[in-house]
Amino acid sequence: MTEPAIKYRLIKKEKHTGARLGEIITPHGTFPTPIFMPVGTQATVKAISPEELKAMGADIILSNTYHLWLRPGEDLVEEAGGLHKFMNWDKGILTDSGGFQVFSLAQMRDITEEGVHFKSHLSGEKLFLSPEKAIGIENALGADVMMSFDECPPFYETYDYIQKSVARTSRWAERGLKAHKNPDTQGLFGIVQGAGYEDLRRQSAQDLVSLDFPGYSIGGLSVGESKDEMNRVLDFTTPMLPENKPRYLMGVGSPDALIDGVIRGVDMFDCVLPTRIARNGTCMTSQGRVVVKNAKYARDFGPLDPKCDCYTCKNFSRAYIRHLFKADETFGLRLTSYHNLHFLINLMKDVRQAIMDDNLLEFREAFFEEYGYNADNKRNF
Amino acid sequence: MTEPAIKYRLIKKEKHTGARLGEIITPHGTFPTPIFMPVGTQATVKAISPEELKAMGADIILSNTYHLWLRPGEDLVEEAGGLHKFMNWDKGILTDSGGFQVFSLAQMRDITEEGVHFKSHLSGEKLFLSPEKAIGIENALGADVMMSFDECPPFYETYDYIQKSVARTSRWAERGLKAHKNPDTQGLFGIVQGAGYEDLRRQSAQDLVSLDFPGYSIGGLSVGESKDEMNRVLDFTTPMLPENKPRYLMGVGSPDALIDGVIRGVDMFDCVLPTRIARNGTCMTSQGRVVVKNAKYARDFGPLDPKCDCYTCKNFSRAYIRHLFKADETFGLRLTSYHNLHFLINLMKDVRQAIMDDNLLEFREAFFEEYGYNADNKRNF
Repeated sequence: MTEPAIKYRLIKKEKHTGARLGEIITPHGTFPTPIFMPVGTQATVKAISPEELKAMGADIILSNTYHLWLRPGEDLVEEAGGLHKFMNWDKGILTDSGGFQVFSLAQMRDITEEGVHFKSHLSGEKLFLSPEKAIGIENALGADVMMSFDECPPFYETYDYIQKSVARTSRWAERGLKAHKNPDTQGLFGIVQGAGYEDLRRQSAQDLVSLDFPGYSIGGLSVGESKDEMNRVLDFTTPMLPENKPRYLMGVGSPDALIDGVIRGVDMFDCVLPTRIARNGTCMTSQGRVVVKNAKYARDFGPLDPKCDCYTCKNFSRAYIRHLFKADETFGLRLTSYHNLHFLINLMKDVRQAIMDDNLLEFREAFFEEYGYNADNKRNF
Repeated sequence: MTEPAIKYRLIKKEKHTGARLGEIITPHGTFPTPIFMPVGTQATVKAISPEELKAMGADIILSNTYHLWLRPGEDLVEEAGGLHKFMNWDKGILTDSGGFQVFSLAQMRDITEEGVHFKSHLSGEKLFLSPEKAIGIENALGADVMMSFDECPPFYETYDYIQKSVARTSRWAERGLKAHKNPDTQGLFGIVQGAGYEDLRRQSAQDLVSLDFPGYSIGGLSVGESKDEMNRVLDFTTPMLPENKPRYLMGVGSPDALIDGVIRGVDMFDCVLPTRIARNGTCMTSQGRVVVKNAKYARDFGPLDPKCDCYTCKNFSRAYIRHLFKADETFGLRLTSYHNLHFLINLMKDVRQAIMDDNLLEFREAFFEEYGYNADNKRNF
């Protein structure tokens, strides 16, 4: 039997929370966890180069199977030598399965036991995705970490619906595992579903753990439920997962949710949030949100974040970045995208240090205070 | 008397043409000529960072007075510490005077001896620009090289109109020289006009040379006339200019026009062409134009230009860049912009070597052949 492509090493548990310091070993390097993964949906992290990702400390990025399947096509990426070579990124890559996009982007879905029929959000073309098909695409893309094909239902669906959905997702996970052609070079994770129902989350976790995946994702969160609700689900879900495997909370990227997820034992995160809000001129800083397009920054010649040492903050002022946004210059969103990604990657570095120092709760308190979460706990990020 | 801010040193004349190897000495460095200057209209070379400009060998860039005057305003740039500091660029900057934009972009112009009344292309606001006003803005921006405020009439205007226009442009140049507050840190060039009329070009050159500017621009070309026509005007205009001052041909950036301009004794060029066509997916390569969006490059896993060693060509394939364009990813136009600027900057390096080797005509012949100009001399670039 070959070695699994993805391994996890638990280094240390924090004394007062469920947080874990560890590392994930992949064919493209070993990366400390907890970790935030920038999203490069279409084989590029929007506006940012691979060299810049490395400079800011990114170790692994996410790319979207659904998007790459539709354009340019997984066969083209495979012919290019795989996704790493195609986009010139030699560190880690994780691909989702397309499941989430089928349920959030595509139209006219028809879910059967075999898979999902739907229409492309680009062309309207009729398409079909099944566990075998999704895993086949992911195998062609060649990412280090792959996701099982799952159904991602709305959080507030009925118990009956979620129960049936979870059972089907488990059957799909098993089919995907059988279809997976490269277990020695690509690690396939199972995705725990079950919405807000503890017993369904337990059922899902048990089903998947019995299949012995090299890692487990927590899906179906950050889809409209409150943060309290998300934390409640994490509270009971992460303990259902084995300690010797990495845990990945999908699609979560606000600073508070990252910290609260780590506290509950999550090791990996991804989200489009930092780059999406950056393109709108909104920045995450040690002083909380800065909407750099606002008129009050017109003559602010200081950096976006006085405590930040990223490329953007070392070299450019709020006034300049605001000017670039007002003048529709793409260099502006490049600078804010760089800063926001650097901010989250660096936040996770600080979080890892806090785990090492066994003071994560104090770190959380101080961070929330400075960021302004305590004063305004309704904000989204 | 203080030293002029801008000096020119003639190093060598090519044996068989009017080409000159030299250097231009500015407060922000000494740069070899002939040189191509990338355009950063709004205090940014579109999609490209200052560090990338340096990496590709750019020594001096152009920025537009008219645009910066309207947005963010020259007072804000001055408050930021000047344009170099505002945009974080510590090498050379040249600003035009706004004259060209007033005549190409603005609406409802009314030209008087005092200056030009017109409407902003952004807001429709009524504005006025005069030699004193334009030079005042350029002083606030603080570029190393400044342009006189001139009228840039259409090439095929009547002799009578051009005669009056040239005389007024000479009077405006003198007023601008008097208004110029920083002759020790910023060098102001005069702009030779006169359309296609040799005697009016001579009159213009004589007027300006008598004012002893530290450099001379050739304006009113590349505004719709043919390349033969442009070369005809250069043939008689550059010999009217003093040998010990730099000569700048404004707004010209196609490879053939650069080489043909150098042959006629031009030292400096600028143009939006390389970045503008790059944003449309068109690249200048050693094999001629490559429209990378074309379907035939979908599975072309080679570089944009097999003879190029730029960042783009070393790291990414035509297939990947095409994918980025098809997927509307800004990283695509960043890669093509980088390549095209590198191409022209590198072309000028080769041209300087050919001047050194006294084989510029042979170089021209070989380049035109490889680029495809000889087969299709109607192409624009």
